[in-house]
Amino acid sequence: MIETPRSQYGQIAELIRGRIQDGTYPAGSLLPSEDRLAEELRVSRVTVNRAIGLLRSSGDVKVRRGTGTVVRSLPRIHRDAQARYAARQEGSGAGEVEVRKLSLKSRTEYREIGRTTTPPAVAQTLGLRKGEASLLRSRVLYANDEPTQIADSYLPWSITKDCKPLMQADAGKGGSYGRLAELGHGPVRFTEDVSIRMPSEEEQRTLDLDASQPVFEIWHVAYTAEDRPIEVCIHVMPGHVWTLRYGWDDQQAPKDR
Amino acid sequence: MIETPRSQYGQIAELIRGRIQDGTYPAGSLLPSEDRLAEELRVSRVTVNRAIGLLRSSGDVKVRRGTGTVVRSLPRIHRDAQARYAARQEGSGAGEVEVRKLSLKSRTEYREIGRTTTPPAVAQTLGLRKGEASLLRSRVLYANDEPTQIADSYLPWSITKDCKPLMQADAGKGGSYGRLAELGHGPVRFTEDVSIRMPSEEEQRTLDLDASQPVFEIWHVAYTAEDRPIEVCIHVMPGHVWTLRYGWDDQQAPKDR
Repeated sequence: MIETPRSQYGQIAELIRGRIQDGTYPAGSLLPSEDRLAEELRVSRVTVNRAIGLLRSSGDVKVRRGTGTVVRSLPRIHRDAQARYAARQEGSGAGEVEVRKLSLKSRTEYREIGRTTTPPAVAQTLGLRKGEASLLRSRVLYANDEPTQIADSYLPWSITKDCKPLMQADAGKGGSYGRLAELGHGPVRFTEDVSIRMPSEEEQRTLDLDASQPVFEIWHVAYTAEDRPIEVCIHVMPGHVWTLRYGWDDQQAPKDR
Repeated sequence: MIETPRSQYGQIAELIRGRIQDGTYPAGSLLPSEDRLAEELRVSRVTVNRAIGLLRSSGDVKVRRGTGTVVRSLPRIHRDAQARYAARQEGSGAGEVEVRKLSLKSRTEYREIGRTTTPPAVAQTLGLRKGEASLLRSRVLYANDEPTQIADSYLPWSITKDCKPLMQADAGKGGSYGRLAELGHGPVRFTEDVSIRMPSEEEQRTLDLDASQPVFEIWHVAYTAEDRPIEVCIHVMPGHVWTLRYGWDDQQAPKDR
């Protein structure tokens, strides 16, 4: 495409990004101070500061108060939607598939498991009556102790209320979908609605983000063979951590291939 | 979830967003000046200014120099990946399906159609040899004259070079996939890799964005029945304009349903 001249701070950001990629500034290391960078690159400190701001938003560096600017250490994680849910029988659930594949240490921390008032948009998606409660399973996932997503899963309370394993962090073999299947409501089809937004202040704290770092919001909906929506799981995932992968067969292609 | 107190400017942003949603400030209208809002809401002008900054990043308003702050007029567009490619026979291509569905005026403007040096990452995805050229079909799409996406489609030059319709904006019935099928390379399967990033300066100009507004980058790859990647289309789409929809059948579910 047509390339146009970039702002000076944009060029400095590109230069620093290049040094991160070629290993001059290794993952997890401390970047030289803004003063030193300004001196070396012969630009003003303001320019370096704006460049670092860009690298911060894009997740290439993190600014640690009292420490300095640290180069990103987590690799980008690829989330293959079909593969992750297909792999769920092997472990306790789908949640940690991608992280383990990268040989990162995976950890799930449940924040809340129990009966909750269903948020209106979730109630609408699940086709619940006004005031009908849900079982909320809310968790934060980590890779190498860095938070990678919040996942809030809502299931109709009327279906789940007597299922003890669903009230625990470890829902047993096949995770919560395994239990739903035993209850006669196993999912056979999924949809995901993906949008981008800026993180709330609570999400910034939980996911270690600043206000300038966008997140994916995924509404994952599971449907039964009767086409009943049986679960809504809302995933909030830092944009710079994830690439989402989806795949499908062309519906116009000959079916007999 | 646990709700924690929000910053004052966050609360003011929420209040203004509420007024946009309930029609107090209708789509396309001018917001009251920051001074007037500050006076009415009994907060400082700095607070109102930061609140407007949030609403700008989220795409709820646009700041027009010399005019003021204008309420967003374009509705959110839902892009159903399977449906859009399945619908491509009806028109000339898949590009305008979602926009027409919302009764918005759709327009595609080609910026470049022709032989190009293949970018390294595209060459790798298409399995091209080093230095092998591509046909680039680069376009900007609009809804009601607002830019909604850049789409740069790369096809192997060796396959496409003698196909005249592919060298034109209107590639004929079924769009470029129709032509690929006639050339014996019709796509039967697609993958999409979705990531979030901040827009480049050129993209900010083309898509009427500011530097704080994140975009989706989608790498759409089409495969032939022989599993050859035959097209890479890179979509750059403002996050606040789009919600992406994907769906699939559970690969663990009984196949005979």
